[in-house]
Amino acid sequence: MSAKGLVKRSQDFSKWYNDLVAKADLAEHSDVRGCMIIKPYGYAIWEKIKDQLDTMFKETGHQNAYFPLFIPKSYLSKEADHVEGFAKECAVVTHYRLKNAEDGSGVVVDPDAKLEEELIVRPTSETIIWNTYKKWIQSYRDLPILVNQWANVVRWEMRTRLFLRTSEFLWQEGHTAHATKDEAVKETEKMLDVYASFVEQYMAIPVLKGFKTANERFAGAEETYCIEALMQDGKALQAGTSHFLGQNFAKAFDVTFADKNGKQNHVWATSWGVSTRLMGALIMTHSDDFGLVLPPKLAPIQVVIVPIYKNADQLAQISEFANSLTSELRESGVTVKFDDDDNKKPGWKFAEYEMKGVPLRIAVGPRDMENKTVELARRDTLTKEIVSQNAISKTIISLLSTIQDDLFSKSKLFLNDNTSSADSIQEMIDILDNKGGFVEAFWDGESDSELKIKELTKATIRCIPLASNETGKCILTGKEDSVKVVFARAY
Amino acid sequence: MSAKGLVKRSQDFSKWYNDLVAKADLAEHSDVRGCMIIKPYGYAIWEKIKDQLDTMFKETGHQNAYFPLFIPKSYLSKEADHVEGFAKECAVVTHYRLKNAEDGSGVVVDPDAKLEEELIVRPTSETIIWNTYKKWIQSYRDLPILVNQWANVVRWEMRTRLFLRTSEFLWQEGHTAHATKDEAVKETEKMLDVYASFVEQYMAIPVLKGFKTANERFAGAEETYCIEALMQDGKALQAGTSHFLGQNFAKAFDVTFADKNGKQNHVWATSWGVSTRLMGALIMTHSDDFGLVLPPKLAPIQVVIVPIYKNADQLAQISEFANSLTSELRESGVTVKFDDDDNKKPGWKFAEYEMKGVPLRIAVGPRDMENKTVELARRDTLTKEIVSQNAISKTIISLLSTIQDDLFSKSKLFLNDNTSSADSIQEMIDILDNKGGFVEAFWDGESDSELKIKELTKATIRCIPLASNETGKCILTGKEDSVKVVFARAY
Repeated sequence: MSAKGLVKRSQDFSKWYNDLVAKADLAEHSDVRGCMIIKPYGYAIWEKIKDQLDTMFKETGHQNAYFPLFIPKSYLSKEADHVEGFAKECAVVTHYRLKNAEDGSGVVVDPDAKLEEELIVRPTSETIIWNTYKKWIQSYRDLPILVNQWANVVRWEMRTRLFLRTSEFLWQEGHTAHATKDEAVKETEKMLDVYASFVEQYMAIPVLKGFKTANERFAGAEETYCIEALMQDGKALQAGTSHFLGQNFAKAFDVTFADKNGKQNHVWATSWGVSTRLMGALIMTHSDDFGLVLPPKLAPIQVVIVPIYKNADQLAQISEFANSLTSELRESGVTVKFDDDDNKKPGWKFAEYEMKGVPLRIAVGPRDMENKTVELARRDTLTKEIVSQNAISKTIISLLSTIQDDLFSKSKLFLNDNTSSADSIQEMIDILDNKGGFVEAFWDGESDSELKIKELTKATIRCIPLASNETGKCILTGKEDSVKVVFARAY
Repeated sequence: MSAKGLVKRSQDFSKWYNDLVAKADLAEHSDVRGCMIIKPYGYAIWEKIKDQLDTMFKETGHQNAYFPLFIPKSYLSKEADHVEGFAKECAVVTHYRLKNAEDGSGVVVDPDAKLEEELIVRPTSETIIWNTYKKWIQSYRDLPILVNQWANVVRWEMRTRLFLRTSEFLWQEGHTAHATKDEAVKETEKMLDVYASFVEQYMAIPVLKGFKTANERFAGAEETYCIEALMQDGKALQAGTSHFLGQNFAKAFDVTFADKNGKQNHVWATSWGVSTRLMGALIMTHSDDFGLVLPPKLAPIQVVIVPIYKNADQLAQISEFANSLTSELRESGVTVKFDDDDNKKPGWKFAEYEMKGVPLRIAVGPRDMENKTVELARRDTLTKEIVSQNAISKTIISLLSTIQDDLFSKSKLFLNDNTSSADSIQEMIDILDNKGGFVEAFWDGESDSELKIKELTKATIRCIPLASNETGKCILTGKEDSVKVVFARAY
């Protein structure tokens, strides 16, 4: 069984994802190449993600600010690796005015309004921000700067998928400036921990923390830390990155500070970001053939109450109960919807809220009212039970917490069950072809080996786990003292 | 007296504004023409504005969504007035890739990556949104759509002023779709009321509600409602607009719905927005020669505690008191900062928090600790009093509420004192030259007269007040039965 119009995951995971994003009303493609429309229900989930992350950023001492959408082309070019990494996917503004076509055919770009220097729509904001920090930083007293920005960014993509890969996406980008290398590294690690805590505790998605290899690093970073998650189809998804930028951008933009002894030093930097891509991770981790499954902490509606009735009297009686329960739950911070829409049948509503991933559904009919019970259905397990109306709000609150925990445990079990190790390339290919998931293997640290393994297996090194200190023989070259890394095929 | 580095309002209001925005750390110009950088303290105020408005939008049944940054040129052109209104200030994306210059001089725009159709960076989103609504709306059951978007928009400006007029700015834009004209008009009016309530109750700025004349209408609207505020220099500032769009966009994008009888009709529309311009209104309404003055409801820091001490023992004793007061206030939702920075002197701190507009300052020294008192200073009145430490948090909470009310009363009084009426053009010019403010006068309803009056007086019709039904002789043409409108010189 699966929901109407939704292909099963086992049949076609990719189509299932696309169908689900559409049927759960999360997002859709716009007519503008690669740009998505985030629909109200999808955006409500993103708002929950955003609000919680924002709270966590502020609790760790960060403040929000806002920098320009446009970056002069010459700024983007100042850090060599950075421009190399982003040049091929830049939206470029060349003119600032339209005018009526002389032949009356409509509006055309006014050739007289050509910009002296082209502007790039920000693909990320390191360059414009470090150009600004130059003015903000003179002395060690101006440090650290702990700033975050919530913004839209554009990286031109030819092949797009909603939430996972779009030309425009929403994200946050933290940009911090420090007096010492040590402090900057600590900040990089702290924000990785913030991301990991958020993704595990709110999104109920277990993650692997590690470093990226040099090949996979952010363009301009000295070290890229990441959290990697595993989707139900056995493919990995990079859920967040935190970059130690060294003094690269400080040098490119000549940002120095006077230390306590009056000596001039270049400033140390970090940047870190997560994006609407997290929505893709959320969908692909928990959802099933009946639709979306949402962890209660991120569900726009946590509980839906559906009345089952044949006449107005019955509805009135149920409504009284439902309204009182609703206010009781709202006081405890639970988001409740009482759906008494008379134009829709209960069965239709059940399917609709299953598709939208509402964690708990309460159905109440006349017999329930007589017996002082309700039917309580869990979206995650698709199980139902009859429970007493007595102390029902307590039951619900506790169950929401259980669901949150269970979703995490289930995903964690899946992650563990789908983490293998391989001693040879062939073994890795077999695992990836048949089972998927994370594959631990030793790698000699050479970029050439990494690329060769990728060519043979279609898997990339997702990360060098933070805690990794095991060594062994490289899976490709057999070289001793190779480091243990985690491979996977990835989004 | 005025704060160091801040010119007096009476000397040069415009310079005072620019200085204040800089010295209070609110915003600065970026190197990108017309684009501003909103600094953390300025952004924190904007966040308060945003959060409260967002709550009010949701309370009135609206949901947030997100639409693309880019609009195909042909979409912008579909509504004739609309494109006429925005064509001259559009940032145009023509290419999607950079490449290395062949002469090695750096990166250049790749001519092979020219877009088939240019994309406009949204100056407002009616066109892209109505193109989307076409897919969302088939039947009366799909209506109303009550959607809002928080976004950045770009309208190319040659002469910019921080917050008041920038090429890129942040705003919200509501876009609603309705089955009937009546419902759409009601929505337009409802959102004008939401704006007026917010601006009066949170920003403590009294506003005049009215219609714009046809000349001043939003490009594509049938009716533009507005709220107008009066700044301390006697100039008006449009603080928010709510547009009844009729069926213009539905017709341009062919958006129809089947009514209950199956008949196809064009959909009725509204749009409404406020922007970071509100920051300019906030600054220019309340602030003085010592810096920013903030209404407590929008102040990122509502209370600052400054210890006055000569040695560590004294500081320890004061800190104990301050920390306990801080937690007590925080429990009541008051934002408090205890500034025990040892590197700065109390006098420096006093001036700093005055500049930043912190509504209440508490100073505590050893003698206060002995006497169980504190010195409490109000930013708005610059008055100080010695109050008992006993029940101090109650005193503070009540005082914050008083300050909020007093700021509104003071501005309201100013508005009333600076609203005049004129019976002749010369009288209007005299008022505007000597006193400024709003000038009520009769106008014959002709666009030509409106433009002629503007030419003669440099004043525009700010609005036709909603409640206006008085008639009289036109100030320009002497025509009878002219309607009473409000003129002012404006930002």
